[in-house]
Amino acid sequence: MDFSSFLTSLATWFVVFFLLMIVFVLASRRPGNYVVYYPNRILKGLEPIEYNTRNPFSWIKEALTSTEPEVIDMSGVDTAVYFVFLSTVLGILVVSGIILLPCLPLSVTDNGGMKQTTSEEKQTTSEGVDELDKFSMANITAKSSRLWGFFIACYWVSIVTLVLLWKAYNHVVRLRSEAFKSPDAKPEQYAIVVRDIPPHPLDQTRKKRVDYYFKGIYPEAFYRSMIVTDNKEEPKRGCRMYNDFDPVNKIWEELEGYKKKLARAEAMYEGSKTTAKPEGTKPTNKTGFLGLIGKKVDSIDYYNEKINELVAKLENEQKVTLREKQQDAALVFFSNRLVAASAAQNLHAQMVDTWSVIEAPEPGQLIWPNLKIKYFHRELRRYLVYAIVALTIFLFMIPITFISAVATLDNLEKHLPFIKPIVERNFLKSVLEAYLPQLVLHSFVALLPKFLLYLSKLEGIPTENQAIRAASGKYFYFNVIDFYIGVTIGGTLFQSLKKIDENPKNTVSLLAESIPGNATFFLTYVALKFSVGYGLELSRLVPLIIYHLKRKYLCKTEAELKDVWSPGDLGYGTRIPSQMLIFTIVLCYSVIAPVIIPFGALYFGLGWLVMRNQALKVYVPSYETYGRMWPHIHNRILASLILHQITMFGYFGVQQFYYTPLLIPLPILSLVYGFVCAKKFYPAFRHQALEVAATADDVLKEAPNMELIFRSFIPPSLSSEKIDDDQVEDALSRLSRSASFV
Amino acid sequence: MDFSSFLTSLATWFVVFFLLMIVFVLASRRPGNYVVYYPNRILKGLEPIEYNTRNPFSWIKEALTSTEPEVIDMSGVDTAVYFVFLSTVLGILVVSGIILLPCLPLSVTDNGGMKQTTSEEKQTTSEGVDELDKFSMANITAKSSRLWGFFIACYWVSIVTLVLLWKAYNHVVRLRSEAFKSPDAKPEQYAIVVRDIPPHPLDQTRKKRVDYYFKGIYPEAFYRSMIVTDNKEEPKRGCRMYNDFDPVNKIWEELEGYKKKLARAEAMYEGSKTTAKPEGTKPTNKTGFLGLIGKKVDSIDYYNEKINELVAKLENEQKVTLREKQQDAALVFFSNRLVAASAAQNLHAQMVDTWSVIEAPEPGQLIWPNLKIKYFHRELRRYLVYAIVALTIFLFMIPITFISAVATLDNLEKHLPFIKPIVERNFLKSVLEAYLPQLVLHSFVALLPKFLLYLSKLEGIPTENQAIRAASGKYFYFNVIDFYIGVTIGGTLFQSLKKIDENPKNTVSLLAESIPGNATFFLTYVALKFSVGYGLELSRLVPLIIYHLKRKYLCKTEAELKDVWSPGDLGYGTRIPSQMLIFTIVLCYSVIAPVIIPFGALYFGLGWLVMRNQALKVYVPSYETYGRMWPHIHNRILASLILHQITMFGYFGVQQFYYTPLLIPLPILSLVYGFVCAKKFYPAFRHQALEVAATADDVLKEAPNMELIFRSFIPPSLSSEKIDDDQVEDALSRLSRSASFV
Repeated sequence: MDFSSFLTSLATWFVVFFLLMIVFVLASRRPGNYVVYYPNRILKGLEPIEYNTRNPFSWIKEALTSTEPEVIDMSGVDTAVYFVFLSTVLGILVVSGIILLPCLPLSVTDNGGMKQTTSEEKQTTSEGVDELDKFSMANITAKSSRLWGFFIACYWVSIVTLVLLWKAYNHVVRLRSEAFKSPDAKPEQYAIVVRDIPPHPLDQTRKKRVDYYFKGIYPEAFYRSMIVTDNKEEPKRGCRMYNDFDPVNKIWEELEGYKKKLARAEAMYEGSKTTAKPEGTKPTNKTGFLGLIGKKVDSIDYYNEKINELVAKLENEQKVTLREKQQDAALVFFSNRLVAASAAQNLHAQMVDTWSVIEAPEPGQLIWPNLKIKYFHRELRRYLVYAIVALTIFLFMIPITFISAVATLDNLEKHLPFIKPIVERNFLKSVLEAYLPQLVLHSFVALLPKFLLYLSKLEGIPTENQAIRAASGKYFYFNVIDFYIGVTIGGTLFQSLKKIDENPKNTVSLLAESIPGNATFFLTYVALKFSVGYGLELSRLVPLIIYHLKRKYLCKTEAELKDVWSPGDLGYGTRIPSQMLIFTIVLCYSVIAPVIIPFGALYFGLGWLVMRNQALKVYVPSYETYGRMWPHIHNRILASLILHQITMFGYFGVQQFYYTPLLIPLPILSLVYGFVCAKKFYPAFRHQALEVAATADDVLKEAPNMELIFRSFIPPSLSSEKIDDDQVEDALSRLSRSASFV
Repeated sequence: MDFSSFLTSLATWFVVFFLLMIVFVLASRRPGNYVVYYPNRILKGLEPIEYNTRNPFSWIKEALTSTEPEVIDMSGVDTAVYFVFLSTVLGILVVSGIILLPCLPLSVTDNGGMKQTTSEEKQTTSEGVDELDKFSMANITAKSSRLWGFFIACYWVSIVTLVLLWKAYNHVVRLRSEAFKSPDAKPEQYAIVVRDIPPHPLDQTRKKRVDYYFKGIYPEAFYRSMIVTDNKEEPKRGCRMYNDFDPVNKIWEELEGYKKKLARAEAMYEGSKTTAKPEGTKPTNKTGFLGLIGKKVDSIDYYNEKINELVAKLENEQKVTLREKQQDAALVFFSNRLVAASAAQNLHAQMVDTWSVIEAPEPGQLIWPNLKIKYFHRELRRYLVYAIVALTIFLFMIPITFISAVATLDNLEKHLPFIKPIVERNFLKSVLEAYLPQLVLHSFVALLPKFLLYLSKLEGIPTENQAIRAASGKYFYFNVIDFYIGVTIGGTLFQSLKKIDENPKNTVSLLAESIPGNATFFLTYVALKFSVGYGLELSRLVPLIIYHLKRKYLCKTEAELKDVWSPGDLGYGTRIPSQMLIFTIVLCYSVIAPVIIPFGALYFGLGWLVMRNQALKVYVPSYETYGRMWPHIHNRILASLILHQITMFGYFGVQQFYYTPLLIPLPILSLVYGFVCAKKFYPAFRHQALEVAATADDVLKEAPNMELIFRSFIPPSLSSEKIDDDQVEDALSRLSRSASFV
């Protein structure tokens, strides 16, 4: 790509971003769109707009003046930690820039990169060398003493990163402990999850065994236990006795579906009562496949009938489930937070594979089907999943390197000669050259997250948010290994296959050599992510269109409409890894081509601004982990730093800098630093420190309503207004003997 | 060494053992020796001999009929676990032998080893090849299908080892939890050790801070705290203020020394009052260097005067210490075991490097000076010590391989021609050839344990018994790496330097090739350990002689005499690693030269018998860790197994066996097994399971005397009849402000 095509693409992206911002400013002012632009405020019962101002940039002012406690208030500690991530990364780039940008003249005023190539090499690389390379280390004469400048910059970047990370970790730990000290009693603080309950003797029910066990250890604080049941499992084949029963979750989903349909039918009926036709039209539907075939019936009557049927069935099934589908896992409730916090970290049984405990997550975050998986089974699954992920990463690399290499226009021309006339037009060529590889890359990226989340749940992880974190971690390694390393090396591999055949090199120096050639590619990538990504994010163009379409043509009830505008959460699971990828790219290029720094800083600076707006006004967090994702983020920033350090080591080697070995202390320093952080900070994320829980109990004014806490953990498919609490208790204790033989 | 010299040395050792056993049988019957042969029974207040029988083998019967509860009763859980180790190892060897010994004919009836050597090689190796090699795999023709027999034996040995280890681990876990459930309240079960106390605010004393912190978290169970002081540190140079004061430990030791001398002088005075001279002779001594120069004084008066002086000084110094030498560590006492057990495993502070807790060891087992070392300082020290140990292991290898190579007679003859006439005599040659390398080896081994214990304490380990375990672990690796691998490879290296120059090999195949040539060396080593080791152990010849000599010429008082016959503890720290070395050798040779198996079985079988006698009647345990050393032993047995598996892999390769890669699953299986065991069993050794503590509290009849428990942890140099408890408390809380500026 030459310089002009690069500038063209940059300009394009900025125009796109500008247009989307105008959309945002205009659309967000219309009260009809408030539910799209201010759902978080509306759901919290606040006025959508505080001051009805005509200033189109007031959102920027509001974002900039918002404080951390406000963010925690509106969106929780997790969001605040997310902003710690953004501002730390921004800080690293900005402070690094102080030394890095003054290095630019060192490379611009040298022409070593050109001189040094032999005439034969010049011919092959001349297409790749363009004006942008003037801004990178590739332009420096080999062995030049100008390299000292970049050498110092290397150390500077590493030190800045480590110092800022240390500060950020301290900050997050403080945020976390302050949140725990809050006087509001949260249900999850009073409960622990117990897994691997050992087989109970025949003369005792499972519930009694759990109660007896925990009452023995915590005689005063023990409140009650809830045995986990299997609400999802289909009856086994050949087990005829159960063939009539659907699992309780399925019945409940069906029931909820019919309830929604009924509400919709009633709304349609009301809507049809016009003045011209006051009796209205009763809606009808067909009972067969997808409502397309079968008998035509009156919808309201039909749904009512179905609902009554299912309610009876559900009640029956709930009893059966509570009685016969108990699993070897339970929730145990304590009447004070200190004991619960202590219980969640204690070793209860001699053998680890029995009575293993973890802190309870928020109600609704438990993955019930995973709770029953036994200790060693879980371990095995985990390693199996790791192996699958490693294999997938490896297999993904093949198409990606191939595509990224082929997808450059020069190569396409070679392979598909008929596109030559189109491609030769200058403007089109520039645009295509910028778009094509990006498009390929993005389509690949889009496929992954769901798959990784599925894999993470397979591991037997007990809570939703932990599964998201696990998937997010895997996604990061995918991003870095496949997209960053794969694209960098892959592109070079195909462009200069001959060169490599002549003198085979190891991966590090190969990576180092490939980097300058890919700088523009990644610059474009950052710009695309920045403009289209944040543009769409801020303007909410897609939700806006969907909302208006559905409101007009589909939705009949208020509940349905709310479903449409409900914003969901920030989606850390995919958001953080893709921002981490950008950070990794910028960090790895920071010293080689410092010109990338302003782009990176712009990306994270504007990102902070846009996301601040979205966090305060749009997204509604669906869970709260008190910043538990920070250690993940921290480790991955560190991994990026080490990748940067190794790349630089290789790159200085390629530049034949004699003092390259002086860079070896850097990755070692990073590893030691990571080890120290893991030792110092991590335990506070794995367990809740007792001093914090003790403070929380002290400030608590009144005793919590344990009954409410207990009920909040009952899954919706098992809770019912009709089955009152005594019955649940009763059913639990009337556990039939047969359950132990399943 | 040829076959006859091997048989000679074997015969010698058996004669030695037989003679020592006769000494034991004869000497142990004389009542005057009871204190040497039955000190454990005497100290426990039992009759030395239960049935006064004339049967010289009654001790064997008693050892064989003793049960595990009896051992626990007489010598504690640690000793019982030591016997689990001995019987597991014995079991592994005996059960392995079932398949291994039938393999012997496979090698004896083949002559492949001879045929395959070329004439040139034969000449060089002919000295090494002797009749014993007929019993080893070296005698098998390369690629022979007879190797399948040994291949199966390999799998058999591994499976037997893993199965028996699993059983043993289960057994030890049961022993441990049963011991914890015992109704006797032990002081250490009510206390925890707190380290890394953060700096206290100026308006609060350190003790108040600790009390406030733990009272806040355990409002009901908290009893009291004890701040750790520095009782050992010399006053700093230049700090004139303190120059008059010796550290409290030193004063106390001096005081105790004078008390002993006084008792001795008084006894001498009493002894001199014969009927002929009823007034007696007052003993005198000189006050100068070592009592040899200086003024002659009346001993009794002089010592009394000194004692009075020191008592006053001690009292004063105790107060100073309690007030001004407080460290950032404390003992915290709880009024019930459950809370103490829970507190020892909880995370108390947000940051791990503050308020870190561990279970309290038995009183007297704490290493006070190590308690004050800060968290990261400890970590650093640990890695530093590991590095030093690794370096020492490496450096030790050089002299050992050299000596073991030179110390064979053939080499000595070459280097020191003048010994030739002596050496050529046949009998002498046999004996020397057996002795010499052993002697060299043993003198090296003897130097190590103290050094390793010193290093382990440097790590900052908080308790004596943990330091012993750490030293013992290091000692094992020393043994295996330096003595086993070093001797094996070293011997071959020097014997066949030329050979190796021709075709350099990797370590594994080098080790494998060297093994058969060293079989007789190690056989002799096992026999020596067995005869002299157990012979001396059982006969207690050295303590017996020392006892009688001292009784006659030195000891004047009962206390002095008791010091002489006090047997000490079993000394796991050095005993287990050297027995592990024997096991490693036998295991590694088991398949290659199965003839070693009976020797190994005899060693551990007789070892069990002799040690059982010693545990029941002689040694007095000095601490109790409830089998905490088992995970160490387990891991080291596993390490031996893996070494065996790798050696076998190499050796089958040397024998050109086509199916050698089929052995690869074995070390992998062992590693997975080790990982599973660590996950399943280890936590119960790191922490005390709450269910166990809860049971213990249930069976406890009366509340423990917390005052006694508290006082038992006060070190002897600080406890005094005069400073009563209130004063201690008072001194602790009257902590001067200056302490915080030290």
